[in-house]
Amino acid sequence: MKSITSRDNPLYKEFKHLATSAQALRKAGRTLLDGVHLCQAYSQHHGLPQCCIVAEGSLHHPEVAAILANIEQQAVQCICLPDALYKALSQVEHGVGLMFVIATPAPQLPATLAVSSVVLDNLQDPGNLGSILRSAAGAGIRNVFCSIGTASAWSPKVMRAGMGAHFLLNIFENVNLAELLENASIPVLATSSHTKQTIYQTDLSKDVVWLFGHEGQGVSPELMAMASQTVTIPQQAAIESLNVAASAAICFFEQVRQQLGKSN
Amino acid sequence: MKSITSRDNPLYKEFKHLATSAQALRKAGRTLLDGVHLCQAYSQHHGLPQCCIVAEGSLHHPEVAAILANIEQQAVQCICLPDALYKALSQVEHGVGLMFVIATPAPQLPATLAVSSVVLDNLQDPGNLGSILRSAAGAGIRNVFCSIGTASAWSPKVMRAGMGAHFLLNIFENVNLAELLENASIPVLATSSHTKQTIYQTDLSKDVVWLFGHEGQGVSPELMAMASQTVTIPQQAAIESLNVAASAAICFFEQVRQQLGKSN
Repeated sequence: MKSITSRDNPLYKEFKHLATSAQALRKAGRTLLDGVHLCQAYSQHHGLPQCCIVAEGSLHHPEVAAILANIEQQAVQCICLPDALYKALSQVEHGVGLMFVIATPAPQLPATLAVSSVVLDNLQDPGNLGSILRSAAGAGIRNVFCSIGTASAWSPKVMRAGMGAHFLLNIFENVNLAELLENASIPVLATSSHTKQTIYQTDLSKDVVWLFGHEGQGVSPELMAMASQTVTIPQQAAIESLNVAASAAICFFEQVRQQLGKSN
Repeated sequence: MKSITSRDNPLYKEFKHLATSAQALRKAGRTLLDGVHLCQAYSQHHGLPQCCIVAEGSLHHPEVAAILANIEQQAVQCICLPDALYKALSQVEHGVGLMFVIATPAPQLPATLAVSSVVLDNLQDPGNLGSILRSAAGAGIRNVFCSIGTASAWSPKVMRAGMGAHFLLNIFENVNLAELLENASIPVLATSSHTKQTIYQTDLSKDVVWLFGHEGQGVSPELMAMASQTVTIPQQAAIESLNVAASAAICFFEQVRQQLGKSN
């Protein structure tokens, strides 16, 4: 295992750059998985990282030691950092000091939208995006398409909120959603509070595309016009609608419920 | 309208203290509502604030002017601050500069748990708490009980995430949940991934208590043992369960669905 002890080491500076700039991540086509849980989830679903970073103080942590033994056997480069240098890379407080450097998965855009998918137009909040990814994975929806303005799915905050859901999904970023929706061969549903038809009255037993938008402004009018149907989650009380991640969870799992009912 | 222009003004210092310390808020039994939307929601449901703070640059904003005209007529004290002083109180970027100072609602604890309620044990994240409050209000659940370790419901972050849901709910804080659950006369449901019975197989057409816990550790074993029943949200894929606010939304709205079905 290689040790780096200087902040001026070029490789360390590269890591630091990746850790602090979403733009650098995008440009490099790489990202950092911070913490044992994300690293384990990645190994399980995708295999080996490009490289592994470990804090000196975590070398003998049993889970870290097991991961290191395995990946060093496979000739993956492991780099050990003094705890202070590691800490400057990590956004996790009190975490175990292990990171994977991975190539950001960039699956090829399908030609048509033909299976249940989530389409996100300009969604802003990393916590909401992570929660939607978890809910989609939990509901068995595999494909998530994000517009250019949507939060960066592979940023550390979104990955933390996603808790490993990223590795169960095909996440397509910077997608031209108008083009994508033009090629949908299944219904495209958007939620709206101005609609009478509830999700409970809608047939969700077959595949559908779920379209969600910006936390404040919702889906852009241009894309809204491309939805096959708007549906509503019936709500009590004069309240400013649900949080977008809560709405998405309710919709995805109403689909799960209907599909389970069909298979029973 | 009174103007304060010095940072050393005792009243300004008091506001600053409230704006920056959750402990100060609790001790004072007051809180700050930041932004036009929250202030309007409060007025609509609770009436007049104790006092109103407005940024000089927002005095002529039409919605602010309308609110000010109304509350000054009712002899509520309004205080105008230079924009820089206002900004030091506010966590909202690019917002309209209006705040209400209100007495934190502290409803009296009911003797029994007899209507649909949400019980939160040690829930940590302000965004999750705000989202759960919105979902509860949207689903027509009125009572939310928070344990001592749960995030402070009336903190600015939770209020922003709650989008006014606070004013539609009875929020009980620092509650001894074990005592509370002992006095439940309706079923207490907790979600668990170790249970086979799904929420869809569970009769939710009558009132129930929903018990949710800490983001990582879930509900404490002591309280879990007090649940009448554990239920599961059926999930695909080997994924580390749903985000707690997403789970709560799915449960609350499955209850809505079953109750709507019954009333049809």
